[in-house]
Amino acid sequence: MSGQGFFVSFEGIDGSGKSTQARRLHDALHEQGRDVVLTREPGGSPGAEEIRRLVLEGDKDRWSAETEMLLFTAARRDHLERVIEPALAAGRVVICDRFADSTRMYQGLGRGDLRAAVDQLHAMMIRREPDMTVLVDIEPGVGLDRALARGGAEARFESFGEELQARMRAGFLALAEEFADRFVVIDGNRNVEDVAADVAQAVRVRLP
Amino acid sequence: MSGQGFFVSFEGIDGSGKSTQARRLHDALHEQGRDVVLTREPGGSPGAEEIRRLVLEGDKDRWSAETEMLLFTAARRDHLERVIEPALAAGRVVICDRFADSTRMYQGLGRGDLRAAVDQLHAMMIRREPDMTVLVDIEPGVGLDRALARGGAEARFESFGEELQARMRAGFLALAEEFADRFVVIDGNRNVEDVAADVAQAVRVRLP
Repeated sequence: MSGQGFFVSFEGIDGSGKSTQARRLHDALHEQGRDVVLTREPGGSPGAEEIRRLVLEGDKDRWSAETEMLLFTAARRDHLERVIEPALAAGRVVICDRFADSTRMYQGLGRGDLRAAVDQLHAMMIRREPDMTVLVDIEPGVGLDRALARGGAEARFESFGEELQARMRAGFLALAEEFADRFVVIDGNRNVEDVAADVAQAVRVRLP
Repeated sequence: MSGQGFFVSFEGIDGSGKSTQARRLHDALHEQGRDVVLTREPGGSPGAEEIRRLVLEGDKDRWSAETEMLLFTAARRDHLERVIEPALAAGRVVICDRFADSTRMYQGLGRGDLRAAVDQLHAMMIRREPDMTVLVDIEPGVGLDRALARGGAEARFESFGEELQARMRAGFLALAEEFADRFVVIDGNRNVEDVAADVAQAVRVRLP
């Protein structure tokens, strides 16, 4: 996709371990001497982090799914312009904890039936897709336990229960089929080291 | 447009006196016993006011025109859902200081060439147009003097100079032709009372 650089996103339901795996991949590539940037969504640039706070704080009905989709797209646009595109243009590896697939899931499927609108907005304002997306796939029960144990600011997104987690897991797996050219599904129901080894191997064979 | 209620927006370049005129119209209709709501954009609902602060504070290059367009559309969506639509559904008159035409101007023409994207985003996420739009039209020099004398948080939008003001004025007049069914152009180069009398007359003949 990107003439230079390489863009890897991590996706998965809450508690899947994707943030841990994104960091592990960053550290491993950095140790190999790669010029690598670790970032996350929502957020990732100063402006996008402010939008993140606006969306994630407060009551879960504070924003409609439509407004939330617009705010996340605004945050992504800023993140893309200020962080991701410049890093890719400089030939860096960009690792992003969540990207557009999370919006396809959480606003497109989780909070409403907005997938068509999410796609239209993405085609209009974002366009960029990762060169590779690692889906850390886990059993919903495992994810929910991990997420609730951790707590924190994202609790409003993680308090929707196991049924939604199961629906989101199925949704991510469906996205992995839809975008089979860039998705790699990794079994995340194992210990961190085993998962990290599989991720590293999958990235190694795809890195330019 | 709205089966019930009546939606009037005010537009014009900075310093045109549109906010004063919106308030005068509100007061006049209220005195006549009308159930009338005065609101403004960007902002107008608690969530949209927070987005407003995010956009209007800070350096003028803080956000790209594209991100700004997304943030203003998010704010408008929230304002529409939480304030405008419920008021119209209750049969109220809604007076809004700026609405989508300001985005057509300031993000569509003023900061980039985004009019097609602005229109697409509006068609997707907003759709609603005012039943009537009052364009308070003034000479750019007059507006700039008034706006700079007033100062305040919007200074970053008003510091672009007389040339931009002239371009925006021409742009608003072009919108008035494009949407001739709902636009009324009022000469704002006069004293407040004369302008208010013309606005009141124009609204009187259109109110259901």
